[in-house]
Amino acid sequence: MSTAALPADFLRAIAESFPSDFLTREPAELQEYGRDWTRVYAPAPGAVAFPRGTEEVARFMALCHQHRVAVVPSGGRTGLAGGAVAMHGEVVLSLKRMTRMEPVDLLGNTVRVQAGAVTEAVHQHCAPHGLTWPVDFASKGSSTVGGNIATNAGGVKVIRYGLTRQWVLGLQVVTAQGQVLELNGALEKNNTGADLRQLFIGSEGTLGIITEATLKLTRLPGKQDVFLFAVPDVAAVLRLFRDARQAPLVLSAYEFFTDKCLARVQRHRKLRSPFEAPSGCYVLLESEGGDPAAVEAWLASLFERGLVTDGTQAQGAAQAQELWSLRESISESLSATGVLHKNDISLPVANLEAFCSELDAVFASRYPGWEICLFGHIGDGNLHVNVMKPDAVEKADFFAHAKQSDHAMFDLVRKHGGSISAEHGIGLLKKDYLGYTRAPGEMELLRTLKRALDPAGILNPGKILDV
Amino acid sequence: MSTAALPADFLRAIAESFPSDFLTREPAELQEYGRDWTRVYAPAPGAVAFPRGTEEVARFMALCHQHRVAVVPSGGRTGLAGGAVAMHGEVVLSLKRMTRMEPVDLLGNTVRVQAGAVTEAVHQHCAPHGLTWPVDFASKGSSTVGGNIATNAGGVKVIRYGLTRQWVLGLQVVTAQGQVLELNGALEKNNTGADLRQLFIGSEGTLGIITEATLKLTRLPGKQDVFLFAVPDVAAVLRLFRDARQAPLVLSAYEFFTDKCLARVQRHRKLRSPFEAPSGCYVLLESEGGDPAAVEAWLASLFERGLVTDGTQAQGAAQAQELWSLRESISESLSATGVLHKNDISLPVANLEAFCSELDAVFASRYPGWEICLFGHIGDGNLHVNVMKPDAVEKADFFAHAKQSDHAMFDLVRKHGGSISAEHGIGLLKKDYLGYTRAPGEMELLRTLKRALDPAGILNPGKILDV
Repeated sequence: MSTAALPADFLRAIAESFPSDFLTREPAELQEYGRDWTRVYAPAPGAVAFPRGTEEVARFMALCHQHRVAVVPSGGRTGLAGGAVAMHGEVVLSLKRMTRMEPVDLLGNTVRVQAGAVTEAVHQHCAPHGLTWPVDFASKGSSTVGGNIATNAGGVKVIRYGLTRQWVLGLQVVTAQGQVLELNGALEKNNTGADLRQLFIGSEGTLGIITEATLKLTRLPGKQDVFLFAVPDVAAVLRLFRDARQAPLVLSAYEFFTDKCLARVQRHRKLRSPFEAPSGCYVLLESEGGDPAAVEAWLASLFERGLVTDGTQAQGAAQAQELWSLRESISESLSATGVLHKNDISLPVANLEAFCSELDAVFASRYPGWEICLFGHIGDGNLHVNVMKPDAVEKADFFAHAKQSDHAMFDLVRKHGGSISAEHGIGLLKKDYLGYTRAPGEMELLRTLKRALDPAGILNPGKILDV
Repeated sequence: MSTAALPADFLRAIAESFPSDFLTREPAELQEYGRDWTRVYAPAPGAVAFPRGTEEVARFMALCHQHRVAVVPSGGRTGLAGGAVAMHGEVVLSLKRMTRMEPVDLLGNTVRVQAGAVTEAVHQHCAPHGLTWPVDFASKGSSTVGGNIATNAGGVKVIRYGLTRQWVLGLQVVTAQGQVLELNGALEKNNTGADLRQLFIGSEGTLGIITEATLKLTRLPGKQDVFLFAVPDVAAVLRLFRDARQAPLVLSAYEFFTDKCLARVQRHRKLRSPFEAPSGCYVLLESEGGDPAAVEAWLASLFERGLVTDGTQAQGAAQAQELWSLRESISESLSATGVLHKNDISLPVANLEAFCSELDAVFASRYPGWEICLFGHIGDGNLHVNVMKPDAVEKADFFAHAKQSDHAMFDLVRKHGGSISAEHGIGLLKKDYLGYTRAPGEMELLRTLKRALDPAGILNPGKILDV
């Protein structure tokens, strides 16, 4: 499908029944709205639509269905898997004008918002009431509620709060045929057959368009303690994790990174390690609550029991921010100091140690000397695996090899019951690898659902899997 | 379909390829396994099957599919909506022999169990490790993991832990065609398209048979405080709720009941109210954590600010149990002291006050003098509404009127965006009322899913909705 393929009678119908600024075909806007943060696909949408509300989305979808026009739903376009990329003349349906937020319901602890509301704006809207929507990650300044829900977004606080899925009470969805569904309203409990919300959460816009949501809120966290620990290896990271989960505190983050990551952060950001001696791995642990004396006793015991080789606790907010910035600068520092190939995978926590050591062996035998930078939300079993290009290897060669190494890594992921995409989704980027995580029976069921909900195949076609 | 209708070649195939004790047609067992705790349907299954593992379930379902034999999946049969009733010659598929529990994974905090494992047995299996599966309610001694998941069970701790849905990492499901699906393994994060687990959670066995699950565990709670407060009315219950959610403690239960409930508990169980003067409503509040001095200051402020008219805090476990038994004896006491008609509904918390006062008005105008006993998990918006038969009214008359009053109540439920079944499910009992909670578009989507997953219509036919 190319730009020219948008049917004339479809365009005429849009022009007749929508405001004049509803649709654009300006080349600059096609470029901008045709892609997300994934930079490997050439955007080529046929048009971009900017509805102001659900009623317009519904009428628009009915027209698209009638004329068999493919639609790519689009939020903050911060995705990393190409889920919001339009490269075949589709119409991008941008929710950017749908940013309305209703007053916070202080009895139910909920807020109703349109799908285009920006994550951080929701946080700011709720914070004066001591409440928050605990969906939080680096791109919160641009990502939207609808995009977060459509990708079931994760982040650094999943260990404390769970994924986005847990924080959506009600969902308003427009179907491929243009029907508006109001799913679950603002109910905590509603056992009346299959929970239809769940179909749309994490489906990357392939089953319906999320237009509004009633978000579940929680109290802003109280005082948080931030610790950085040095441990020799992944096995020690996991021993400490097991211990920390039994400690007299509530874990709100358990993040890990290797010395290789830290070295690149130090090089790029000129940040200092708080430790004298380097160590194989580091753990950033954030906690809430707990009796201070009990927490102190636990901390002391970590050294006595040999669970950590070094450790520091942030004294005050500025130091806490310094420790967090070591972890949060990793992505940027890796990109700034080299060429890399990334993956976002997950494993059952119990299999992480075996996986990491087998992964080391695979890379060591296939690509001796290549640098692998591992970090991630290890408390959720989530690893970000980054392969750095050696100076001596050409870029094209490197990416060809990296792609091959993906297969070797995904074989291990499959062997250990893991997922090839922990939080970034499948989109276009991981589509060819979906079979490593989904068995043939699951793939068939995914196709069955897609055909049942979008028989004309107009909703984000080609994303996740081909029908 | 009657007993005679089980095809001879189906029965022959079962006899040839399964152990001799796999299937029974003994009348006493048909009676026993043909029903759940709902006592309004006459059980009439054609047979009862007792598989020992997933492989047998899969072979059995393939045969049922081939011969178009209807199947009613069955766990602990503690359901209250007729979801596990077989009254048309179906084969009951009892999971009672599938009770295996694997060792607790102390790194991942998970446990893999077969669907027939009893809830309380899972608790006992995990407790020595300081862990629990926080799915907890009155029937835990009989209810099974598979049944809990198939009905997305609730209970008194939902406000703290959420519904069963949140505590299922992996799900093994056998489809209507006899295919085994392993969904999500033991992964916390796995964003690889629609989350297929969610289809089966809460679907009451109409979309697949749950055979095994990997359960997510959490730490056993620490010290808990139990309070009973007296307040004048529902509005005051909700004012206190709003305040308690901002209090320096973690709410682990927020239960309410009216004076009418307490009076019947006192009559039946000879329990004493801890308060001198009667009050319109009572709140049982259970909390964890919090600085004792801060909690005490908050408590004192409740009286000063007029949020409660009386209150008591349990001193020790025995007193805590006494307070809890006031709440937990309600169901039994209502049944023991009268004839009643029950409903389990939910509302957005913000609409509870208006709903309750409109409900009062409806009953007062239609049935002056009838006694309505309200109690429930009000922090989740969940109300148990019990209409008591007046002595002067005949039973048959009473139930006919009560059924009519359901329509008036469900009109109010719909008006306020509520659910006709908060936690008990739909089964047979609420099927005719589903339209009060589900819009026509949702009903159609539920039917679409059912047809897609169970095209032959053999999985728990007639439950939730007719296709």
